[in-house]
Amino acid sequence: MLNIKKPTLILNERICKKNISAMAAKARNQGVHFRPHFKTHQSAEIGEWFRKEGVTAITVSSVSMAHYFADSGWKDITIAFPVNILEIDEINELSSSIHINLLIESVETAFFLTEKITHPCGYFVKIDTGYHRTGIVDSDISLVEKVIQSANSPRLHFKGFLTHSGNSYQIKDKAALQNIQNITTERLLRLKKLYQGLYPEIIVSVGDTPTCSQLAINEGIDEIRPGNFVFYDVMQLALGSCKPEDIAVALVCPVVAIHPERNEVVIYGGAIHVSKESVLLQPSQKQIFGLVVRWDGNCWNANTLLGSITSISQEHGIISTFENACNLKPGDLVAVLPVHSCLTAHLMRTYLVQDGRVMNTMNS
Amino acid sequence: MLNIKKPTLILNERICKKNISAMAAKARNQGVHFRPHFKTHQSAEIGEWFRKEGVTAITVSSVSMAHYFADSGWKDITIAFPVNILEIDEINELSSSIHINLLIESVETAFFLTEKITHPCGYFVKIDTGYHRTGIVDSDISLVEKVIQSANSPRLHFKGFLTHSGNSYQIKDKAALQNIQNITTERLLRLKKLYQGLYPEIIVSVGDTPTCSQLAINEGIDEIRPGNFVFYDVMQLALGSCKPEDIAVALVCPVVAIHPERNEVVIYGGAIHVSKESVLLQPSQKQIFGLVVRWDGNCWNANTLLGSITSISQEHGIISTFENACNLKPGDLVAVLPVHSCLTAHLMRTYLVQDGRVMNTMNS
Repeated sequence: MLNIKKPTLILNERICKKNISAMAAKARNQGVHFRPHFKTHQSAEIGEWFRKEGVTAITVSSVSMAHYFADSGWKDITIAFPVNILEIDEINELSSSIHINLLIESVETAFFLTEKITHPCGYFVKIDTGYHRTGIVDSDISLVEKVIQSANSPRLHFKGFLTHSGNSYQIKDKAALQNIQNITTERLLRLKKLYQGLYPEIIVSVGDTPTCSQLAINEGIDEIRPGNFVFYDVMQLALGSCKPEDIAVALVCPVVAIHPERNEVVIYGGAIHVSKESVLLQPSQKQIFGLVVRWDGNCWNANTLLGSITSISQEHGIISTFENACNLKPGDLVAVLPVHSCLTAHLMRTYLVQDGRVMNTMNS
Repeated sequence: MLNIKKPTLILNERICKKNISAMAAKARNQGVHFRPHFKTHQSAEIGEWFRKEGVTAITVSSVSMAHYFADSGWKDITIAFPVNILEIDEINELSSSIHINLLIESVETAFFLTEKITHPCGYFVKIDTGYHRTGIVDSDISLVEKVIQSANSPRLHFKGFLTHSGNSYQIKDKAALQNIQNITTERLLRLKKLYQGLYPEIIVSVGDTPTCSQLAINEGIDEIRPGNFVFYDVMQLALGSCKPEDIAVALVCPVVAIHPERNEVVIYGGAIHVSKESVLLQPSQKQIFGLVVRWDGNCWNANTLLGSITSISQEHGIISTFENACNLKPGDLVAVLPVHSCLTAHLMRTYLVQDGRVMNTMNS
């Protein structure tokens, strides 16, 4: 029995390792390079579980995160975020000791790096194949060309084209997801073929958990960078990327009040623990902040659904239960499957593993 | 000039002290006890600014937060959250050295405390006057009576009736807000009058920033517990509780990419910095995650609006700018006024004050 008194993020090591192993095997079987995104777990120890699967190169979302993982022995890191030029000193420090890849999408940043970079590093041109968050629109060859021309330093090595098809989070149908992957692949491969004559080594890199979990990776893709699959969550469940029993983290929370007359249970566990991320879950058509399942003292059971968090404040979560408050009482514990495990893990900062071990993250 | 390279929460000390001073003066002038909620700032140092205004009693939202502020010298603390009975040891430890008030809303919790509490402490019966998050519905006299009867220990002192009218966040019109305050007051005073014969010292305690900021406190209210007013935020601005220049914190973020063709600017600053809290802002009718204003290197100017964050991921914020990306370029800094300052402060963990001093919080 774990001794839990307040909101605690529990990591199921077995499920997590199974998720890592499955994605590593998929990449191996399809012959694509696997460069997992570590922004979800942010933990050196979980990083080691990837290493055991043969992973040697990773993706992160900030310069600080790159430093943290470099300190734990990773020597090939893509910082999958438009370069923050204000951190040039930290970038130069990193590239003096390990191999890093940067993302460039503007002439200004390319010029800046050409002038200021002090050690060899790789760069990808960040391409927007339809998500419209960041990147150069794939059809804007003129800008792609200007950026490559502007990154004119013997220390800057052009590695290829990279995208994040975040639009894969906006669909709920496998055919639509396949369509996004097809368009993404086609657009990136067109760019690759255009520049391959000049740069024979360039690759195309994609990566989002819905596509990498649900579909075969398209022919021509060289590298995948999914991250969330390490834990999965209710968002991925809603998208069809995982089953309830694939979710590897749950926030265990004390029950503090019961309102059987309106089928509600109040837990100590709110926006500062699970985050304010919500998802519209079928068939209820309600915006929810987590699914609530039974906790037996050491494990949650993903198939004993008690209800969902339908309202959340700073420290309170309000669970709408299926019936009559499910016989819960103050002092009981329940487990919340988070909507967005990356944000919950970031907020909670440590994991409690079922053998009682506390695992740290870069935020501990 | 402050040296900022990545998302940094700036605290404007002058505005913050003005907000504290104004609310303390209002309470004094209206003759109500001021027991500010410290969950917004979570900082011992900001606590001292309240002490200088004569504050001696405070409100917190967790047992951990009570311990933190007890350690910095506060001796009268209401934990405004339904008692988490799993933390009974921590509660007994607190009540052995300072005065604490607990919130009870169930017979089970009242029985538990009667049996387990080891030192004198106060308790309020938590009343639901219409928000329907927690508390006993005010008309359920039978349950109120059972709870008071069950809290049958010489160590448990009945202090009165407490509510949080969180429904004040659901309206945008002063008349409706006044109506909520009137209903709340009337319902609490009815209970007070009912029990005053038996317990002559009991009080009624209310507290939410919209009511306390926008309205005169109703006759009969004994104590107010607002918290957010210390910083205010875009939510309070939308509700009419403050003006832009009353907001005391802003997240300063680097610009990393520009998309003038769609009037968008990408900043390093996302859900892990500002939170995913959003608000529907008039007149745009868009759900936004922050308002973006100019940063001059040392100060933001709340009246130089550049745009708003209309989309947010883990580390990216997408600003919809008013026109042509406002001449911003990668490496520039902008200031984000947060939608919910409590969550932003919790995520950021420290404040950078304009004289360059770093102020810690309980999460540092």
